[in-house]
Amino acid sequence: MQQLKRIFIGRPLKSSEEGNQKLGKLKALAMLSSDALSSVAYGTEQIVLVLTQLSIAAIWYSLPIAAFVLILLLALTLSYRQIIHAYPGGGGAYKVSSDNLGKNAGLVAGGSLLIDYMLTVSVSVSAGAEAITSAVPALYGHQVGISLVIIIILMLMNLRGMSESASFLMIPVYLFVGSITLMIGVGLYKIFTGVIPFKAAASVGTAVPGITMALIFRAFSSGSSSLTGVEAISNAVPFFKKPRARHAAETLAIMALILGAFFAGITFLNYWYGIVPEAKVTVLSQVASHTFGHGFLFYLVQFATAFILAVAANTGFSAFPVLAYNLARDKFLPHNYMDRGDRLGYSNGILTLAIGSGALIVLFNGVTANLIPLYAVGVFIPFTLSQSGMIVKWFKERPKGWFGKSAANFVGALISFAILLILFIYRIKDIWPFFIIMPLVIFIFYKIHDHYHKVAEQLRLEDTDAVLHHFEGATIIVLISNITQVTKAALSYAESIGDYVIAVHVSTDENPGKEKEIQSTFKVDFPDVRFVDVHSNYRSIAKPLVRFTQVISRNALRRNYSTTVLIPQFIPKKHWQQTLHNQTALRLRQAFSHKENIVVATYSYHLKK
Amino acid sequence: MQQLKRIFIGRPLKSSEEGNQKLGKLKALAMLSSDALSSVAYGTEQIVLVLTQLSIAAIWYSLPIAAFVLILLLALTLSYRQIIHAYPGGGGAYKVSSDNLGKNAGLVAGGSLLIDYMLTVSVSVSAGAEAITSAVPALYGHQVGISLVIIIILMLMNLRGMSESASFLMIPVYLFVGSITLMIGVGLYKIFTGVIPFKAAASVGTAVPGITMALIFRAFSSGSSSLTGVEAISNAVPFFKKPRARHAAETLAIMALILGAFFAGITFLNYWYGIVPEAKVTVLSQVASHTFGHGFLFYLVQFATAFILAVAANTGFSAFPVLAYNLARDKFLPHNYMDRGDRLGYSNGILTLAIGSGALIVLFNGVTANLIPLYAVGVFIPFTLSQSGMIVKWFKERPKGWFGKSAANFVGALISFAILLILFIYRIKDIWPFFIIMPLVIFIFYKIHDHYHKVAEQLRLEDTDAVLHHFEGATIIVLISNITQVTKAALSYAESIGDYVIAVHVSTDENPGKEKEIQSTFKVDFPDVRFVDVHSNYRSIAKPLVRFTQVISRNALRRNYSTTVLIPQFIPKKHWQQTLHNQTALRLRQAFSHKENIVVATYSYHLKK
Repeated sequence: MQQLKRIFIGRPLKSSEEGNQKLGKLKALAMLSSDALSSVAYGTEQIVLVLTQLSIAAIWYSLPIAAFVLILLLALTLSYRQIIHAYPGGGGAYKVSSDNLGKNAGLVAGGSLLIDYMLTVSVSVSAGAEAITSAVPALYGHQVGISLVIIIILMLMNLRGMSESASFLMIPVYLFVGSITLMIGVGLYKIFTGVIPFKAAASVGTAVPGITMALIFRAFSSGSSSLTGVEAISNAVPFFKKPRARHAAETLAIMALILGAFFAGITFLNYWYGIVPEAKVTVLSQVASHTFGHGFLFYLVQFATAFILAVAANTGFSAFPVLAYNLARDKFLPHNYMDRGDRLGYSNGILTLAIGSGALIVLFNGVTANLIPLYAVGVFIPFTLSQSGMIVKWFKERPKGWFGKSAANFVGALISFAILLILFIYRIKDIWPFFIIMPLVIFIFYKIHDHYHKVAEQLRLEDTDAVLHHFEGATIIVLISNITQVTKAALSYAESIGDYVIAVHVSTDENPGKEKEIQSTFKVDFPDVRFVDVHSNYRSIAKPLVRFTQVISRNALRRNYSTTVLIPQFIPKKHWQQTLHNQTALRLRQAFSHKENIVVATYSYHLKK
Repeated sequence: MQQLKRIFIGRPLKSSEEGNQKLGKLKALAMLSSDALSSVAYGTEQIVLVLTQLSIAAIWYSLPIAAFVLILLLALTLSYRQIIHAYPGGGGAYKVSSDNLGKNAGLVAGGSLLIDYMLTVSVSVSAGAEAITSAVPALYGHQVGISLVIIIILMLMNLRGMSESASFLMIPVYLFVGSITLMIGVGLYKIFTGVIPFKAAASVGTAVPGITMALIFRAFSSGSSSLTGVEAISNAVPFFKKPRARHAAETLAIMALILGAFFAGITFLNYWYGIVPEAKVTVLSQVASHTFGHGFLFYLVQFATAFILAVAANTGFSAFPVLAYNLARDKFLPHNYMDRGDRLGYSNGILTLAIGSGALIVLFNGVTANLIPLYAVGVFIPFTLSQSGMIVKWFKERPKGWFGKSAANFVGALISFAILLILFIYRIKDIWPFFIIMPLVIFIFYKIHDHYHKVAEQLRLEDTDAVLHHFEGATIIVLISNITQVTKAALSYAESIGDYVIAVHVSTDENPGKEKEIQSTFKVDFPDVRFVDVHSNYRSIAKPLVRFTQVISRNALRRNYSTTVLIPQFIPKKHWQQTLHNQTALRLRQAFSHKENIVVATYSYHLKK
């Protein structure tokens, strides 16, 4: 077990080794931008899909809609840059909302993000698996299995530690950036040199009968799925090299620039080429084949797309554990999420995310499309909240240039909120589970918080109160099953700590007469120790023992004695041999562990052979 | 958890309630014969399949081959009746072989049977699942899932207790017996009245070119798979009502009669009707449709067959745990197999069987055919050994009529051994895993036995040796993480049992300065107790604590003091809240549990709110 752990996770790191694990800009871009950048694989397609429900001529509307998405991207980027500087400790929407809009808004943001990170992993991994099965048709039908394998690989990488996985992730991200840049560059060159003629179904400005604002809104809300993931960097500021905030803000700007250029480029090429969505071939793949033909470069784009989608899931693995840590520190999630693993990662957060996203994959049978509306809701709620929070902050603090800053946040908040409204109105059939899950999550947050609060109150020790209770003596109850070397050693120990030692044996109907035999042997061997036999009608020996011990304990308390139950066990020489012995000691410990005024001690006798 | 257990398993039974759980003959037949009887669903088919590899004309050889199988059945039945009377305590081949042929032969028999019972469950359940999917084509492709569900249902029924499941099992077994009896009766009637004419491909005695003894041997060895399961009753004698041996022997005779009649009848009808095996329709199903046409009675036979195949698996569930108990009692398997559950069943045996057979289903992807040769080897090894054992017994004891008795056993042993030889020669491709698994199982048996022997030797206490060691005092090490009510209570307790109390705190790099704070608070609150701070470079607090404790323990030993480590913990009011707290106490207990000369005690502080 330990050795397996070493192989997959690596040697434990000292706490002081943490500094080495910090991210530079190039690594951070690889680590944190794959979610956002990989969105361009489906963003344009989502817009065109909605528009072509009306007619092919409506495709030209994708250009103004894309312009709006770019405005939203600009607003979000400016807003998140401000958040990074205002909150260098990370925490993103949860922290911003909590600080400026109050605890409830923070918890809504935090809860949405927790769910959303799981969806990020599920969506990206399942889309990646679909891309893989499209490339290797022999694997078709095993998408769920492939997705789960990818999740397990990502989980292990993250348990190993951040920096190493970032180095590895640079390959696919920069491969994707390079191949898409090349594709857009070559496409534009071929357009300007006239190699590829204008083939759009209808040029910009053509009147399209039946076009409505509702349709355009829906197309816009679908297209905004390209923006999922832009918040990731603001959550992960503590992982950057110093000066953390500046490095993070610059990384965000670079990422937004690439994302905007890719999205605009792909949407324009799609319009110019006159591409119509097909069931089995993605829009991005059609753009690539129009640009490159069906050669090496086409396959490079396909491969890079599949790869970055699989990698996008990793964004969730870096953001979720930090958010869970922050929620746990504020006592809204179990403390376990604050534990660091051997390699300095927040192991429990990583494991929870892997299990949760794996379950989503299985539940939705690995079909990406059904997850996407939920995913958008989970993203735009914290977007709206964190930007509203920033507006409040500027109004409160009024630093230099606060009006301009708040204007950027205001535009961002407004557009995000508008998208949410559009989603609530036009997508309610897909997003209803959200209205069940969110209140439940908030309820759990409060239940946990309340519990921790009560515990702390009960455990607090006032100085005036800090005087030890003085017991008059100690009663020790030693459990006996046979009379062996273990019994002797345990009784010797019991006499060293106790003023009154009782040996107890439980007899059952299974071995009639055994109690007499044991009793007489005991009297001969240890004449000075009191021996009691308790009879059980069931095979369980725990219940009668607990009942007997409680009686003894009440008597002891009356005499101001403490009560200890001593469970003797022997430890075989080799570890595997432990499984050959009845787990009685373990079961008894469990039976006693919740009894008041009884201390449970285990005496271990070590075998030499 | 406890409530779920109640619903599925039922209320616990007293040991003295065991008498009520005994089986009468009719119930026992239902419980123990389904494995043997259900074999007729494929027995004839296996013979004909081998013969038709040569030509359709060879089918008439199935009649003399069936006659040989019936002779084998007669010999086995006589032999097992004698075993039942000679060994009323049950245990079957394992016991007979151990007693008469020595420990090694017994272990080979026992090991073969353990594996074979798993195969019984896997084969029957997967064949039953195939029958179900044949009846309900919509379920096709889910055989593995259906098989696992059936295994889980059988497991739960057996954990509930024997008698209740036997009552339930009477329905399918008697339904099968009734419908097959009706089928053979109607078939013979229609033949004698001339309604169904003689259509055999070639009548008995026709010369078949190319026929060899090898082919006939192979057909015979395949047909002998009909006899799997006849030993079940001899293993389960203790479950019968008194007089146990007589009831068991009579039940065996009834079962053999039914089995023989069914096998002979189906083989004859198959010959008369001129049926040739088909890929998708079983021979039994063809016989039924020739006899009844495609009406209600045809579907009844199909349904009853599917049902009894599912139920046949239950034979394994009654025999495996008893055999595991016997092996555990003789110290060849872990003692856990001797533990009785709440409902008096040997729960661990039942669980092991369910897991093992489920794994076989998954490994062999639910395909019955591949499992059958292994299954036959697993059956005929103990058959051969137990009958050889009986011959040795008769020669040793020479009771009245010993020569006749040993003759029956001799014929049985000879035919069983011949089948084994045929299997080894003609089926080595399918049965090779047996030659890896068996030596491994025997090796494990001996490893376990050796270990138990050594342990008993080391634990034995001689009278002369039984004097308690007198310690001069007790050192108590109390682990401290914060200064709370728990700390205070634990220290009070520690003073009640100890002569020298030390409080230990571990500080890490995570919270620099915390150790100073805790130290000074501690000095103020508990000035009389020694306080030690141990520093850890890792997040693990267990390792430095163990190291520190071992130093203290060595010093204590030098002064003839005992050493106790006291781990304080608090118990929240509600059980679910336990998960919200760090499992530190548990982890520390584990870290200390294997250290010599250190007793680990847990102080539990109970919260009221």
